[in-house]
Amino acid sequence: MQLGMIGLGRMGGNIARRLMNRGHEIVAYDRSSETVAALTQEGATGVDTLEGLVASLQAPRAVWVMLPAGEATESTIDTLAKLLDADDVIIDGGNTFYKDDIRRAQALKPQGIHYADVGTSGGVWGLERGYCMMVGAERAIFERLDPLFDDLAPGYGDLERTRGRNAPDDRAERGYIHAGPVGAGHYVKMVHNGIEYGLMQAYAEGFELMQSKSSSALPEDQRFELNLADVAEVWRRGSVVSSWLLDLTAQALAGDSRLDHYTGAVADSGEGRWTIDAAVEQGVAAPVLANALFARFSSRKENTYANRLLSAMRFGFGGHVEPPK
Amino acid sequence: MQLGMIGLGRMGGNIARRLMNRGHEIVAYDRSSETVAALTQEGATGVDTLEGLVASLQAPRAVWVMLPAGEATESTIDTLAKLLDADDVIIDGGNTFYKDDIRRAQALKPQGIHYADVGTSGGVWGLERGYCMMVGAERAIFERLDPLFDDLAPGYGDLERTRGRNAPDDRAERGYIHAGPVGAGHYVKMVHNGIEYGLMQAYAEGFELMQSKSSSALPEDQRFELNLADVAEVWRRGSVVSSWLLDLTAQALAGDSRLDHYTGAVADSGEGRWTIDAAVEQGVAAPVLANALFARFSSRKENTYANRLLSAMRFGFGGHVEPPK
Amino acid sequence: MQLGMIGLGRMGGNIARRLMNRGHEIVAYDRSSETVAALTQEGATGVDTLEGLVASLQAPRAVWVMLPAGEATESTIDTLAKLLDADDVIIDGGNTFYKDDIRRAQALKPQGIHYADVGTSGGVWGLERGYCMMVGAERAIFERLDPLFDDLAPGYGDLERTRGRNAPDDRAERGYIHAGPVGAGHYVKMVHNGIEYGLMQAYAEGFELMQSKSSSALPEDQRFELNLADVAEVWRRGSVVSSWLLDLTAQALAGDSRLDHYTGAVADSGEGRWTIDAAVEQGVAAPVLANALFARFSSRKENTYANRLLSAMRFGFGGHVEPPK
Amino acid sequence: MQLGMIGLGRMGGNIARRLMNRGHEIVAYDRSSETVAALTQEGATGVDTLEGLVASLQAPRAVWVMLPAGEATESTIDTLAKLLDADDVIIDGGNTFYKDDIRRAQALKPQGIHYADVGTSGGVWGLERGYCMMVGAERAIFERLDPLFDDLAPGYGDLERTRGRNAPDDRAERGYIHAGPVGAGHYVKMVHNGIEYGLMQAYAEGFELMQSKSSSALPEDQRFELNLADVAEVWRRGSVVSSWLLDLTAQALAGDSRLDHYTGAVADSGEGRWTIDAAVEQGVAAPVLANALFARFSSRKENTYANRLLSAMRFGFGGHVEPPK
Repeated sequence: MQLGMIGLGRMGGNIARRLMNRGHEIVAYDRSSETVAALTQEGATGVDTLEGLVASLQAPRAVWVMLPAGEATESTIDTLAKLLDADDVIIDGGNTFYKDDIRRAQALKPQGIHYADVGTSGGVWGLERGYCMMVGAERAIFERLDPLFDDLAPGYGDLERTRGRNAPDDRAERGYIHAGPVGAGHYVKMVHNGIEYGLMQAYAEGFELMQSKSSSALPEDQRFELNLADVAEVWRRGSVVSSWLLDLTAQALAGDSRLDHYTGAVADSGEGRWTIDAAVEQGVAAPVLANALFARFSSRKENTYANRLLSAMRFGFGGHVEPPK
Repeated sequence: MQLGMIGLGRMGGNIARRLMNRGHEIVAYDRSSETVAALTQEGATGVDTLEGLVASLQAPRAVWVMLPAGEATESTIDTLAKLLDADDVIIDGGNTFYKDDIRRAQALKPQGIHYADVGTSGGVWGLERGYCMMVGAERAIFERLDPLFDDLAPGYGDLERTRGRNAPDDRAERGYIHAGPVGAGHYVKMVHNGIEYGLMQAYAEGFELMQSKSSSALPEDQRFELNLADVAEVWRRGSVVSSWLLDLTAQALAGDSRLDHYTGAVADSGEGRWTIDAAVEQGVAAPVLANALFARFSSRKENTYANRLLSAMRFGFGGHVEPPK
Repeated sequence: MQLGMIGLGRMGGNIARRLMNRGHEIVAYDRSSETVAALTQEGATGVDTLEGLVASLQAPRAVWVMLPAGEATESTIDTLAKLLDADDVIIDGGNTFYKDDIRRAQALKPQGIHYADVGTSGGVWGLERGYCMMVGAERAIFERLDPLFDDLAPGYGDLERTRGRNAPDDRAERGYIHAGPVGAGHYVKMVHNGIEYGLMQAYAEGFELMQSKSSSALPEDQRFELNLADVAEVWRRGSVVSSWLLDLTAQALAGDSRLDHYTGAVADSGEGRWTIDAAVEQGVAAPVLANALFARFSSRKENTYANRLLSAMRFGFGGHVEPPK
Repeated sequence: MQLGMIGLGRMGGNIARRLMNRGHEIVAYDRSSETVAALTQEGATGVDTLEGLVASLQAPRAVWVMLPAGEATESTIDTLAKLLDADDVIIDGGNTFYKDDIRRAQALKPQGIHYADVGTSGGVWGLERGYCMMVGAERAIFERLDPLFDDLAPGYGDLERTRGRNAPDDRAERGYIHAGPVGAGHYVKMVHNGIEYGLMQAYAEGFELMQSKSSSALPEDQRFELNLADVAEVWRRGSVVSSWLLDLTAQALAGDSRLDHYTGAVADSGEGRWTIDAAVEQGVAAPVLANALFARFSSRKENTYANRLLSAMRFGFGGHVEPPK
């Protein structure tokens, strides 16, 4: 089917490519005309304005916005709202906060413009492996867009089928779901990312425990020089902790098991944060997800005020002067 | 090769079976004579005493102890120490604390008896999928036992090879490693289990965030009735959080997405606890692994003294009387 | 000076009383006419409508709203906004979210109505001990209301003066501060409560460690039957952990060291939650404050979905059936 | 009474001084002869060997060891064991692990030498304020040493008496307790320190939340420049979070509210760590105490392996390159 794609970065460009490879027609816009030109070479219809994009699409139109969450996405949708007609659909494939989706869908309703939020996982590997998608939309809109999701998703692959699964709708098994009404797609994706932080931190702590086991601070007969690349590799096979993140770990360690060229300042995105806000809002204890987020905060800071205050208190009651770092 | 197997429970029995299926000769002992008889039917040489076991093996002997960690394993090894000869090997395949391995190997040294600790992951699936093994032992002993590990391990399988991996020894890729000297196998397995707790807790918190999103305590337009079986299923394909634990989650939810027949009192074993002790000993921050363990502690208790004291303080400063549960 | 007081519950009533005791004139309103009547007996001018309250005050008026945060406070302020004149002041002494203060002050600005947010600590003890107050307001408004704060605050008391303190303004030493512009008072109070949760949880965990040290699960020579009332009492004198919360703990344990009549379901209020949201917003690692909040969430629930999912995974990979609780 | 004091550092020296001031007779030993000489000037009987110390004391002797926990204390007690007679008492006033106390007392039993462990809080302020003490010993030994504890303790002071307290023994109210048999004193002190870490971290996180509220990363109308010295000061009066640690915080901030001359690398001692080991051993959830400890670990490290691994995974799935620190 025909799709307008706004934002041709790492994610948007590859989504457009995967769709074109499977016979869909892409009308492509990006604020960089060079990026548009490049995709036009690959078969897209390039446009240089949002007006042009809307004019190039047949009604009812489908427009996929793949931009950084926040201001960029918000203003683009505001503009589209003025250009589109009733029954058109705006798809937000970025990492938008789900309450913003709900708010926007409400705002677009009087004009009859539909809205779908698509949480997308798969990162840079999606072009090749396919994208795992969680969609929030009215059911009819989800069905209308199904041909796109069907071709973007990974499909069955060679995964073993889940024992006991007996659902009439096999789309989950092909890599996409209708999560629920508007907002549900991004909500599920948000939790997905929260879990991702937790999983990553669990591996990170475990590998540090193994790396530090060679420390000269330990008694000599309890020191081990573990080959961490081998450990990650062996766990890929038959262990309870095997996962795609472990595959990536094995890959990183195969190249450089000391990881010396990483600074260890770890970024975090909105979704990890919103997950904790959701836990607080819903009264759900989420110590692992929260601590995973906090570990990232700490990774980016030195000598925080909090730590200096601890030292000040220690000096206050015990005259302790901290040892140099 | 020939192996004495002590303990024919879920793990030991299946390890013996997998080895026999691949042509090894098993001399089998269990305190239950019926269990011994059953395995004898499947081709093992059954014995009814440890003396008999030792007598049935050719020197240098290899004896695999597969018993609950602690007293059962300790006393069996004490007895074996009196029966075995120099150059024999005792293999502890259970979940022993790695410092106990180091201590035992030291104690056996004067007699020339070798010791190997084999951390084994794979659970009840090992018979079919193979066992992921991390071995602590002198290198020569590891090499001597290699035929066993080779047949117990999952082998390459159809996993994609780790990009960039270029190690001369491919045993990690076949599912087992020589982790290091005695103790190293169980140390790596201990950390493995610590990570396992963290991964499980990350999923658990995430799924509770999704399950509780249907709560009537939330504003109606922000409630979602999510199909969690579908969510688990869709994440298996192409998402960053795909893993074997997620496969198991999908399987559990396919059968019963409400999980109503679980009580939610979650057991923990020694390894999760020792991981935290190791973190404390080595000065490694492990908030996610620790909180995963603590969540299990809390799951098994109600109305702890800690919580009652919180209520007592709240009453003290604010006259607050807690609402009924 | 003259003050209108709206809400004569545990907090509002006692604030009014303390002010009257020190010569201020209170015009009192509560939705319960009996409560108004009671305070009238003690010297207040009772009114039965907000209109009556406004009419009874001389301009520029000061009206203190002491109601539950949220809807009750919001609607009362909306009504007052229609009744008051330019240069009047609305004081919110409740536990309002500081961003709501900022929003309201903005909304009142066109009418020239001032706004002050007063974070108040001291609980039921305030009538006797005085209230510790953190005020957010334009400086001139803070100064105008100073006579009220001065009399509500505890004053110097017999506390030792802070060594090195050399500030020209001694109001902090008398128990109240101008924290900053509108919102700053409630922000500081919010953090205060976040800290309070953390302190309480630290004591709670520690006392549980002592209480559980008598458990028959421990080796007999490592069991202690500790007299926890005595422990709390002794720590009050000269120890690093002495505090008012410890005083309250000692008091609770003096009466009933087993705390058997508390259920252990611990409530939490908005401020503990907002503190975590602020940590997330500001990128501040707050593991202790977050875990203190989460411990309260957990205290109120049994058999969470999270825990049931852990059990389901354990069953999936190991065939483990959890022991009964 | 007469007491041998071994170790005349900050703690031991002041304990000796406080006892001499109250009429006790001190026989003093330190490996530094200058330190011994200094205390001799103040009235102690100085000795330059342990043999000399034992010879100078009348039987039954009482010897207080006030040395760093671990090797220094252990070897001193080993030596004393050879020099002392039946019915003498060794007092360990340091920060010894309580299981070491139990082991030592067992080892001394055949010789009839008694052992007492005295957990001591009060830091450098003890000379002036008195020491808060938790004693583990046979009851008769505790009673024998009572005159020492009585004079070391702070006494009633001007603290308000705990309401409802009605215990026949008022020693807790004077600042010392017989916690239980050998080990109980250091166990209670260990938990005390674990709580101390939690309390300190709660304040630290809270003050960082206030300090970072002035960050230019926040919207301008939600930034506050809070006077943290004033906040700490005001909370000392009538607030729920008032404590001695807060007094020290106020003192530190009065002098330098930016705390710029602290590096923020925060040391930890054995007791914080043993508290977590005890929580793990006893199955007590202690997320706040554990996270407080972990925060100290993190404060002393940069670019941990754990964090580098997070970055490596992020690069693996998303091509993310972390921003510079």
